[in-house]
Amino acid sequence: MAGVVESREWHLTAYAPEGVPTSDHLKLRTVPLSLDVDSIPDHHLIVQNIFISVDPYQRTLMSGLEDGLYFPQTKLNEVVSATTIARVIGSKDSSYREGDIILNPFGPIAEYCVIPSALHLRKVDPASELPLQEYLSSLGLPGFAAWVGIEVLGDPKPGSNVFVSAAAGGVGMFAGQLAKLKGCRVIGSTGSDEKVKLIKEEFGYDDAFNYKTETDLDAVLSKYFPNGIDIYFDNVGGEMLEAVLNHVNTHARIPVCGMISQYKKIWTERQGVRNLLNMVGKEVRMEGFLVGSHLNRFGDFAKEMESYIKEGKISSKLKIYHGIESYLESLGSLFTSSNFGKVIIEVKK
Amino acid sequence: MAGVVESREWHLTAYAPEGVPTSDHLKLRTVPLSLDVDSIPDHHLIVQNIFISVDPYQRTLMSGLEDGLYFPQTKLNEVVSATTIARVIGSKDSSYREGDIILNPFGPIAEYCVIPSALHLRKVDPASELPLQEYLSSLGLPGFAAWVGIEVLGDPKPGSNVFVSAAAGGVGMFAGQLAKLKGCRVIGSTGSDEKVKLIKEEFGYDDAFNYKTETDLDAVLSKYFPNGIDIYFDNVGGEMLEAVLNHVNTHARIPVCGMISQYKKIWTERQGVRNLLNMVGKEVRMEGFLVGSHLNRFGDFAKEMESYIKEGKISSKLKIYHGIESYLESLGSLFTSSNFGKVIIEVKK
Ligand SMILES: NC(=O)c1ccc[n+]([C@@H]2O[C@H](COP(=O)([O-])OP(=O)(O)OC[C@H]3O[C@@H](n4cnc5c(N)ncnc54)[C@H](OP(=O)(O)O)[C@@H]3O)[C@@H](O)[C@H]2O)c1
Ligand SMILES: NC(=O)c1ccc[n+]([C@@H]2O[C@H](COP(=O)([O-])OP(=O)(O)OC[C@H]3O[C@@H](n4cnc5c(N)ncnc54)[C@H](OP(=O)(O)O)[C@@H]3O)[C@@H](O)[C@H]2O)c1
Repeated sequence: MAGVVESREWHLTAYAPEGVPTSDHLKLRTVPLSLDVDSIPDHHLIVQNIFISVDPYQRTLMSGLEDGLYFPQTKLNEVVSATTIARVIGSKDSSYREGDIILNPFGPIAEYCVIPSALHLRKVDPASELPLQEYLSSLGLPGFAAWVGIEVLGDPKPGSNVFVSAAAGGVGMFAGQLAKLKGCRVIGSTGSDEKVKLIKEEFGYDDAFNYKTETDLDAVLSKYFPNGIDIYFDNVGGEMLEAVLNHVNTHARIPVCGMISQYKKIWTERQGVRNLLNMVGKEVRMEGFLVGSHLNRFGDFAKEMESYIKEGKISSKLKIYHGIESYLESLGSLFTSSNFGKVIIEVKK
Repeated sequence: MAGVVESREWHLTAYAPEGVPTSDHLKLRTVPLSLDVDSIPDHHLIVQNIFISVDPYQRTLMSGLEDGLYFPQTKLNEVVSATTIARVIGSKDSSYREGDIILNPFGPIAEYCVIPSALHLRKVDPASELPLQEYLSSLGLPGFAAWVGIEVLGDPKPGSNVFVSAAAGGVGMFAGQLAKLKGCRVIGSTGSDEKVKLIKEEFGYDDAFNYKTETDLDAVLSKYFPNGIDIYFDNVGGEMLEAVLNHVNTHARIPVCGMISQYKKIWTERQGVRNLLNMVGKEVRMEGFLVGSHLNRFGDFAKEMESYIKEGKISSKLKIYHGIESYLESLGSLFTSSNFGKVIIEVKK
């Protein structure tokens, strides 16, 4: 391929320490990009993004503050990044050829780009029967995060009482389904009645509730967990974590995947959890994790997840936005409960 | 032995939801007690207490509130209880005879009492060379709590950076010494300059500071932990736990033994910890524990601790109060930093 394309890309123009980034902080710009392979350095690839994963942590790279996830901040004027599925359209690395489909854990949010081939790229097997976007969902970081939290840290047993917050989201939908497959009783929380329905009907949770219309979290947890909580898969932190800590059973496990209710604030403004003492009396283990530290288990996960998918035991719901211009809106959707399942941008058909 | 003694005992007359119990809540009364063995039921013992352990959790049994330790509240008018070392002076159980020395995990805080022999009593080996009071300190729950936190949950490695709060207290003095014996670098915090000296000179900590005279906990942790904290043995919770969470290294462990800074308040008034999100980014494991759940390891602990004591590798400091009348004062000392080492009452010489 040769010639020059006009490629659109999202770059950061100002940090957003509080709230959700807007067009004041993120702007789309168009840059010319040569598709002539001779124009790129050795060990580089020209790629065209097909799918872009929209994830809550991306918001934390735009605050300009060191925060509890400790990812390096995006620099001003730099293109923001995401996990992407891309097609190689030019290669200066003999391991990759035109037409290869790759998974790029940290690629620019752009239509086209030139990337070093030394990044931790993974080639998608062309023989795979799965739709490509599943590599960003069930077989990607959301599925893997759910598996690490439930299977590696959660110690699920048949009959364990499991609670999952943000249960209709990318990670949450898999966390609950994996726990169900282990024989647990699983309840989810989410931010709309429509999503409550989805959780019960599509993801097979035993029950679910809308935390936005419940005025008393303590009462609602008493209702759904008359026998207490054994595993809390925490996606949201804050108020819900505090409520859960008043309902934990002895030796409960709390794998902490994220705390999305707290990402929009600097830490001193975050909600303090006042009842951590319950962790002593109930001997609770709370453990934060990042999927990146568990990559040695990715193979085990992928094998298990693929077989569940083939057997129709796992349902994956995607919310697809179209066109790179939808990034700002799709990112915002993660913080307003308006997303369903895993949020992905389809850059180009 | 026969006859009747006048036995003094502490009973609860009112709950103290906040603050430290005073003579408004705890009162000493004198009751006649027959020492005639025929006066007691089968499978009971008449015992005379020799030593009584004074522990922070006792305060939490007098609040009248369900709190984070979940121990059952002492009933009004009931005698309060503690771990005691006692001498059998009358027995209606063939496993015990007059003169036996027993450890009673939950005995009444009284000079004399009648107890069921079915309690989890442990006989102290008459051949033991250790002073009896060590069965309430190095070889008792404080030593065991330190061992569980450091060795079972802490995963100490040579060179690990270990921080212990309430480091001059019953549990803290052993936690730091055990970590030093594993080759760690150990820093302690405590509430007086005299205790800072004790921690460094007697317990061999690498360094220590007085948290009461430090105005900026963040700065003091930066100073003592330029390379971050790998293990935080938490005895105090609250403000110090929050400060520590800004200095943890990746995969830090926080065994939570207690949260004494929070015992005097109802939970909604406790200090919220706002930076738990750091547990995700740093993949921290925080785990509450109660020694009672680890009794299957008590034998391993006792063997290890006894050999350290014989080799002079562990120092145990006791603060002995004299006479049962000192209970109120000795309990209060735990909440005012005026105690040193393990607080014990010697009931009678
Ligand atoms: N540790 C890791 O390695 C790792 C990897 C991937 C993701 N994560 C974390 O996992 C969590 C879920 O991520 P995801 O990608 O699956 O996103 P997602 O759940 O698809 O989207 C975020 C969801 O969070 C909920 N939410 C937003 N603001 C909230 C608030 N203030 N209180 C409660 N819920 C709120 C919304 O759903 P509702 O309708 O339920 O409100 C929203 O849909 C996030 O915390 C993320 O950072 C961690
Ligand atoms: N999990 C278990 O099974 C188990 C078993 C035994 C003990 N524990 C817990 O372990 C901890 C230590 O118990 P211990 O028996 O060894 O008592 P201790 O440390 O001998 O006495 C309590 C000490 O706590 C400190 N303290 C009091 N109020 C404080 C505050 N507001 N902020 C910071 N420090 C404060 C004081 O020392 P400073 O001079 O340093 O202020 C006081 O000397 C307690 O939290 C206790 O509940 C747990």
